[in-house]
Amino acid sequence: MIEIVAGIDIGGTNSVIGLVTRSGDCIAETTMPTRNNGNFENFIESISHKIKSLYNQVDPSKYKLCGVGVGAPNGSFGIGAIVNAPNLEWKGVLPICKELTKQTNLPAVVTNDANAAALGEMLFGGAKGMKDFIVVTLGTGLGSGIVSNGKLVIGHDGFAGELGHTITEINGRMCGCGNRGCLETYVSATGIKRTVFMLLAQSNKPSKLREISFENLTSKHVTEAANNGDSIALDAFEYTGRLLGIKLAEVITLFSPEAIFLFGGVAKAGNFLFDPAKKYMEEYMFPVFRDKVKLLPSGLEGKNAAVLGAAALIWEEINK
Amino acid sequence: MIEIVAGIDIGGTNSVIGLVTRSGDCIAETTMPTRNNGNFENFIESISHKIKSLYNQVDPSKYKLCGVGVGAPNGSFGIGAIVNAPNLEWKGVLPICKELTKQTNLPAVVTNDANAAALGEMLFGGAKGMKDFIVVTLGTGLGSGIVSNGKLVIGHDGFAGELGHTITEINGRMCGCGNRGCLETYVSATGIKRTVFMLLAQSNKPSKLREISFENLTSKHVTEAANNGDSIALDAFEYTGRLLGIKLAEVITLFSPEAIFLFGGVAKAGNFLFDPAKKYMEEYMFPVFRDKVKLLPSGLEGKNAAVLGAAALIWEEINK
Repeated sequence: MIEIVAGIDIGGTNSVIGLVTRSGDCIAETTMPTRNNGNFENFIESISHKIKSLYNQVDPSKYKLCGVGVGAPNGSFGIGAIVNAPNLEWKGVLPICKELTKQTNLPAVVTNDANAAALGEMLFGGAKGMKDFIVVTLGTGLGSGIVSNGKLVIGHDGFAGELGHTITEINGRMCGCGNRGCLETYVSATGIKRTVFMLLAQSNKPSKLREISFENLTSKHVTEAANNGDSIALDAFEYTGRLLGIKLAEVITLFSPEAIFLFGGVAKAGNFLFDPAKKYMEEYMFPVFRDKVKLLPSGLEGKNAAVLGAAALIWEEINK
Repeated sequence: MIEIVAGIDIGGTNSVIGLVTRSGDCIAETTMPTRNNGNFENFIESISHKIKSLYNQVDPSKYKLCGVGVGAPNGSFGIGAIVNAPNLEWKGVLPICKELTKQTNLPAVVTNDANAAALGEMLFGGAKGMKDFIVVTLGTGLGSGIVSNGKLVIGHDGFAGELGHTITEINGRMCGCGNRGCLETYVSATGIKRTVFMLLAQSNKPSKLREISFENLTSKHVTEAANNGDSIALDAFEYTGRLLGIKLAEVITLFSPEAIFLFGGVAKAGNFLFDPAKKYMEEYMFPVFRDKVKLLPSGLEGKNAAVLGAAALIWEEINK
């Protein structure tokens, strides 16, 4: 019998469920809407049903299903629950692990999406063999998963590693968390969009980006414009990369990682983002660390990293 | 036989050696100059000799000496060496563990002073039973020892936790490390002195501190002046506490500790420092952590914390 686990990535719109081997092969996968599933119990029933039918699709005489790992916004490993996730319709403390175990008779663990991405990177991606590294996920917001001494830094209440909500500018941009100036208001798909609009206001340089509304602008537009030499787009990446680099310098001074991985849509801008980030990271870090810390794209890009990360989480638990 | 270890605190001027039990009782202690001991090998010989004579002072038939722990500036746990310590006369990589073991036939471990303070706090001080906490040592500089998942965060190269060298102000005050605007140029005995001089220049308020030269001013003077209602001194603590609080907010958002302990001379200013630090820490942290993280004075204050910390380090190693 080959052992497999279910990895579940719960997103605001859709959830993805995959069956994953110990070596990180996803042998079956399905998607279901996260919204419009009724109350939370109904949603868990639907997910459990999906896990069972996926398992029946593969050869159950050949595979043994050993556990369920979940990556979710505001997922807390410590209490096995999703807590007040801003993008989910169910509020309060959702005891997802207990409910999944009740439905499936399998051990279940949860963590937030960025922590899951870090575990995926460690087990199946570019961080194989590393004990100290950081994954920064650059999507609508900015998440981070920090591994120190080979373990996820989850902290006393299970919510550590909120790099996106460390402050970059006192009294800066308004953030969804209630504070101002959080890193993710500058460094994320939304952040770069805000920066483009700031630059369009401040400068009178011509730019293709002047034709796109705030609602319609995506980080992909900005990357395309930068590829065409649009100077607003290039300035936006320089501005974003500088703030990311300064923050990474700080994080390196605290954690001394072997590498930092950038993951997600914005990271696909490649050198437009990596070059200024690397430059300012080296400039502002504690000199003893200079030229030692790698800044890399995720080794899981292109794969379903969130599902692999959720699967890595439960493999870690089973291996304990 | 009662098991004991030797804890050694290597300072720029003096080194302190103590024999410490498992429960943190220091049963014998001695001091020796760090400087003027010839080359590094001579210094290690002198220290080893001191350990042996201390051990002979206690009853060797009653106690068994099990190991040596060292706290030193730039001590690297990973390589068992002191590396280019700015305050020591010997430069380069000093393999202190190997040399001590050669002289004493005992296992030896080294870490930096702030990490040793954190271990001392965990084994014998206010952090007993905690798995996630941070100790900030406020002396001439600012050191930090970070414990996550019950383990010291030492990072890939053994030098993690350099909170004092994270940047507080871009292009700010010159720091001994070569960068500008490091936290320790604001928050430390030296930092508060620089702040007093900045405030004396900016304001025309009367102050007793106007009578003291930069060379002669100590943080104790500033505390005394604050106790007498001196408004420059009070402003200096507000300024210092605010910058400390903002930085602690960031550290909390990354590590989610149960408590932060402030240790050392400047921390003795008590509420002058703690009140603004606590206020701004709460204001700038990720809202989910608010009102949960304790800001406390060290539970080792008054004891020889550095020696206890060094002893805790080797006890940790022996217990592995």
